[in-house]
Amino acid sequence: MANAKPNLAVRNYAGIFPNSRKVYLRGSRPDIRVPFREILLTRDGKHLAVTPPEHPDDPYAPWGDGEGETSLLVYDTSGPYTDPGADIDPYRGLKPLRTPWVLERGDVDWVRGRTGRTVLRAKGDRAVTQLAYAKRGIVTPEMEFAAIREGVDPEVVREEIARGRAILPANVNHEALEPMVIGKKFHVKINANIGTSALSSSVEEEVEKMVWAILWGADTVMDLSTGPRIYETREWILRNAPVPVGTVPVYEALERVGGRPEDLTWEVYRDTLIDHAEQGVDYVTIHAGLRLAYVPLTAERVTGIVSRGGSILAAWMLATHEENFLYTHFDEILEICRAYDCAISLGDGLRPGSIADANDAAQFAELRTLGELAARAYEADVQVMIEGPGHIPMHLIRENVALEESWCREAPFYTLGPIVTDVAPGYDHITSAIGAAMIALSGAAMLCYVTPKEHLGLPNRDDVKEGVIAYKIAAHAADVAKGHPRAKRRDDALSRARFAFRWEDQFNLGLDPERARAYYDASMPEEQLARTTHFCSMCGPKFCSMRISTDLLAYAREKGLSVEAAREAGMREMSERFRAAGGDVYV
Amino acid sequence: MANAKPNLAVRNYAGIFPNSRKVYLRGSRPDIRVPFREILLTRDGKHLAVTPPEHPDDPYAPWGDGEGETSLLVYDTSGPYTDPGADIDPYRGLKPLRTPWVLERGDVDWVRGRTGRTVLRAKGDRAVTQLAYAKRGIVTPEMEFAAIREGVDPEVVREEIARGRAILPANVNHEALEPMVIGKKFHVKINANIGTSALSSSVEEEVEKMVWAILWGADTVMDLSTGPRIYETREWILRNAPVPVGTVPVYEALERVGGRPEDLTWEVYRDTLIDHAEQGVDYVTIHAGLRLAYVPLTAERVTGIVSRGGSILAAWMLATHEENFLYTHFDEILEICRAYDCAISLGDGLRPGSIADANDAAQFAELRTLGELAARAYEADVQVMIEGPGHIPMHLIRENVALEESWCREAPFYTLGPIVTDVAPGYDHITSAIGAAMIALSGAAMLCYVTPKEHLGLPNRDDVKEGVIAYKIAAHAADVAKGHPRAKRRDDALSRARFAFRWEDQFNLGLDPERARAYYDASMPEEQLARTTHFCSMCGPKFCSMRISTDLLAYAREKGLSVEAAREAGMREMSERFRAAGGDVYV
Repeated sequence: MANAKPNLAVRNYAGIFPNSRKVYLRGSRPDIRVPFREILLTRDGKHLAVTPPEHPDDPYAPWGDGEGETSLLVYDTSGPYTDPGADIDPYRGLKPLRTPWVLERGDVDWVRGRTGRTVLRAKGDRAVTQLAYAKRGIVTPEMEFAAIREGVDPEVVREEIARGRAILPANVNHEALEPMVIGKKFHVKINANIGTSALSSSVEEEVEKMVWAILWGADTVMDLSTGPRIYETREWILRNAPVPVGTVPVYEALERVGGRPEDLTWEVYRDTLIDHAEQGVDYVTIHAGLRLAYVPLTAERVTGIVSRGGSILAAWMLATHEENFLYTHFDEILEICRAYDCAISLGDGLRPGSIADANDAAQFAELRTLGELAARAYEADVQVMIEGPGHIPMHLIRENVALEESWCREAPFYTLGPIVTDVAPGYDHITSAIGAAMIALSGAAMLCYVTPKEHLGLPNRDDVKEGVIAYKIAAHAADVAKGHPRAKRRDDALSRARFAFRWEDQFNLGLDPERARAYYDASMPEEQLARTTHFCSMCGPKFCSMRISTDLLAYAREKGLSVEAAREAGMREMSERFRAAGGDVYV
Repeated sequence: MANAKPNLAVRNYAGIFPNSRKVYLRGSRPDIRVPFREILLTRDGKHLAVTPPEHPDDPYAPWGDGEGETSLLVYDTSGPYTDPGADIDPYRGLKPLRTPWVLERGDVDWVRGRTGRTVLRAKGDRAVTQLAYAKRGIVTPEMEFAAIREGVDPEVVREEIARGRAILPANVNHEALEPMVIGKKFHVKINANIGTSALSSSVEEEVEKMVWAILWGADTVMDLSTGPRIYETREWILRNAPVPVGTVPVYEALERVGGRPEDLTWEVYRDTLIDHAEQGVDYVTIHAGLRLAYVPLTAERVTGIVSRGGSILAAWMLATHEENFLYTHFDEILEICRAYDCAISLGDGLRPGSIADANDAAQFAELRTLGELAARAYEADVQVMIEGPGHIPMHLIRENVALEESWCREAPFYTLGPIVTDVAPGYDHITSAIGAAMIALSGAAMLCYVTPKEHLGLPNRDDVKEGVIAYKIAAHAADVAKGHPRAKRRDDALSRARFAFRWEDQFNLGLDPERARAYYDASMPEEQLARTTHFCSMCGPKFCSMRISTDLLAYAREKGLSVEAAREAGMREMSERFRAAGGDVYV
């Protein structure tokens, strides 16, 4: 690790979600303990706590005391940071929970790495990837862990990985990883980009952003640091990250040659990639599909090349007039990635940077090549996903997924947004959440978030949260629309709470309890702030449709009327009872 | 007007959009002066001002000095509030620009209204509606005004209104109205709901919210006030609103019977409706499609009836066991609306309040009845649109538009969101912007905004802005995706500015220049804040893909290479020139 010790301020954040508690579901062996957040609901104003069953058939089903729902389990990305019993020391890093699983497979050795540290690496040319195991029919503890998170049979996870339609990014050197799976059959995932630039931020801030991102729901983080201290920043993030960490090695390679792209060489890049793999990076973006012949296709674009990695490679190709060295050395890249199970995210260096450039020849030429490379990775037992745009108007989104699935054999599609209009700098978390929700509905497996600062500056901690929440919304909306059996339960539980005026439950079941509570409190007069009121300040007591509706339903339910029965009994009796009670719903 | 004079603080907001100026395009007669905002662009850091042509063939085309684009015209909803020459006095109200057009048609009289004031009303049973004129082949000044705003031939506006696929809400008593048209062939419109509740807000705040909403782009506002001073609040809003104002008369009718729905009568409602029409309300939401037989269909819903108006009518029907009086008296309602050209927005009192209740029997039963009522309105020459949901998961959105178009003869569909997931209270401007963009792409003509306070409390001024911007994004994204010929110009102009590092232009072409500028400034180090830098803090100078890309393109463009030529010339020469120049894009 580096010399100057950073001043890391991350801590245990247990309690950030009111009335929630960390629970673990055990898998087939004691060391498979899968974290969830249990949101405890109220009844008659009292909080209910029910001990979760140890091996529930359906871990997402509400745990009841026989009298209705009392809590809801939700997928939890926050790692030990929300476990009140966890001793969080960022200098020591998180506990290496996963190392026994890696070692017991007997196919890795402790070796001296390039920088002198001791790291895990495949024995000989053994393929130590989840893909290799899946192809051989092996359900790893990692697969079982991810399956329990998803609420599916572990065999489904294995099968999806084996056919290349899902990946489980899990570098053998990422010891504290809580495994998760990315693929269209599973919950739509979101990634949060963090990282320093030459102008802004620090190691300390980036570690804090990482924790902040996963607290609010980021499934992976990418460390896109540039400028000084790249290696060190990544090290601190990796040691403290329970989620997969992705990087773009060409950024660091460029720093190593003084920022002059024409001085890049395969050897410098290779060494950088090995360093990342040895450190434990779970997936790397590699712009190997941007071939020399495609660069002129961008000449008439409105916004040229907007991928950082893509522009670096384009500059190198123009300076050398040689084919992209990531393309020509792709087999060696595969060899490295296979030895650590570092998944490849094939970068879209020619993604459009404006809706004007969407779905153009440059973009699709590269996508075809990504398909070719994805097939080679799959053959080499290296896990692979495909990066997608970018800036795409709504009517052109579906075509992106259709072509990706056709050309890239349904390898997980990992898209950046897309942004659906360019007219709203400062609000691109919203412009892109629209596109993200739509592309996820069409089949994208992971969404790279966009923050309000996109196009304007480096996001701070607050921006990270805004971006993550906007993308949780997009991902969850897609899960619901795709018919994910677990997703709608949270919507329904929240809607029931809303309709029953269980304000605390409504807040706590939401993605951001604190903000919902603050908004409610801010607009209610002091004296009404009990949060037991059967209305809010939007309509006031007389005009609260939910209240009126609840009161009306009470008549039907008192009598035990079903829909059919209510129709049969007709409205007359209901109306008489209503009148008899003095029609006092407005009092 | 009311006795207690409110303390109205609205003022002239000219200057709120930097480097923009108000311009007017003249129509076929001197008193048709159609407002636009001209965003002035820069060249070499200097602002360009070019006098607009008086009668441009294509008013949206950039006005140049022969050397490229120098400015961009955008649709302007802000009325006189952004005209530096306008004398804004909220106590006097806006100038009655439109009254001559109404009077010269010779079909209205000044009469003494119900409250004693002098108002305009149709002579006898004359139909004074834009629909009646359109059917007779007349292009009114209002239609021409709206057509110039849209950038289409006035005949297109007339034809769309004549066939009932568009409406032009324009009460004869709304004298300061700047006419606009709502229909799927035109720009997608957005509405902002404002209004007091018994618990919160004041006349002053609501007038300010109205102005704030139209400054940021609201095409219409609905005054949903409840509680005390409803009439007075509406009066101040109407006198100061250059956009159509909508209301829901049943709210005020309920206040007039002391808040007891069972005491509502047709007569009380009728008098309220006439008061609204006489005041100048441009469209009224009428929940006439919620028939008695449909109420039991909601009994098993997760969230019952969530429309305020719907729940009031349901309570009345349960109390009286009579058919909805808005349904039984619909012909009389049409007569009133026709005499003032008050458009009807058929309310969806049974819209779902959660995604669990989406597209259910209750919702669609009502929609069928709305279709029947829309046909009757059309026959009676009353302009009509159809309100839509609400809470709908993404995969069920399209069905709503398909059924509306089929059952309601493509009358403009005016939807509330829809919200696509219920799990994000505090962020429902985002959850609903996703659904709004999608439903607009499918054909909805106007989108009712949702603010971050939805479900939690009454929006304040800041929330109004957040809601309006989120909905401008949704509406504009749909315009782009639907292929609206004007829409993409703004995206492209902004993208060109972005790629050329014209930061000021990028900010000013965006929906919220101030926020974009603030975000940029906040993350750039002091010494770099010239805003002439060819990068931002996100990537820093070395990694700025746009900068690299620009530098690369410069080589091609210096030589005048087109895409084809660049291919032919091959990459070699470009690469040599790049090297010869020292490859210094990174210096």
